[in-house]
Amino acid sequence: MTNESAWLDTVAWNADGLVPAITQDHASKRVLTRAWMNRDALAATQADGVATYWSRSRAKLWRKGEQSGHTQHIKEIRLDCDNDAVLLLVEQVGGIACHTGRESCFYQRLQGSGWQAVDPVRKDPADIYKS
Amino acid sequence: MTNESAWLDTVAWNADGLVPAITQDHASKRVLTRAWMNRDALAATQADGVATYWSRSRAKLWRKGEQSGHTQHIKEIRLDCDNDAVLLLVEQVGGIACHTGRESCFYQRLQGSGWQAVDPVRKDPADIYKS
Repeated sequence: MTNESAWLDTVAWNADGLVPAITQDHASKRVLTRAWMNRDALAATQADGVATYWSRSRAKLWRKGEQSGHTQHIKEIRLDCDNDAVLLLVEQVGGIACHTGRESCFYQRLQGSGWQAVDPVRKDPADIYKS
Repeated sequence: MTNESAWLDTVAWNADGLVPAITQDHASKRVLTRAWMNRDALAATQADGVATYWSRSRAKLWRKGEQSGHTQHIKEIRLDCDNDAVLLLVEQVGGIACHTGRESCFYQRLQGSGWQAVDPVRKDPADIYKS
């Protein structure tokens, strides 16, 4: 008898039952986001082929793009050498992962001794999140 | 009077005074490692141009490559939109970031319902860490 969810047991969940998930665009190779997953989020991501995270602030599963439409379609799911971090390779719908309307959340670059927003806003957040 | 370390105050350090650092090869674009930094580690990384992390297990600063020679030279330091994750773009000396001798620590890929080591070992760890 096989255990279909044995791969979930391999993950070294932290004391809160979470694992950090790094998400990378499979085409541009940009690192897009860093978020958290619990066991249900990772299981849903694998089953549905769409990135689902755990929102710590809202204490609920959060299917990326459910409001913005900027869904992340899974190309690969990877695990690191000590099993405590997940890497998702995704197709980023709309080319926007950040709530600021930028491709990546990592848009602030250290220049001299200050952080500068160096990436363009691709779409006004007011247009992304209008009801 | 300017505060030269104000950029360090911008980082949203967690309750343990740490921030997660994702490190990406600037040439291959592979995500190499995920590690932790404290304030001293990030300051040293910026000052020296070489990635320095905080080892939670050893409770000390850890200059990546100090044993293996696989130093990471900094090309860019980035911060995410909520200031609680750092992204390093680096030149990875030796093309090996993982202690297993692989380019990236994220060498396990989910295939069906199991994790498979899919990336080649570039150098035997016994040769990397020999004294």
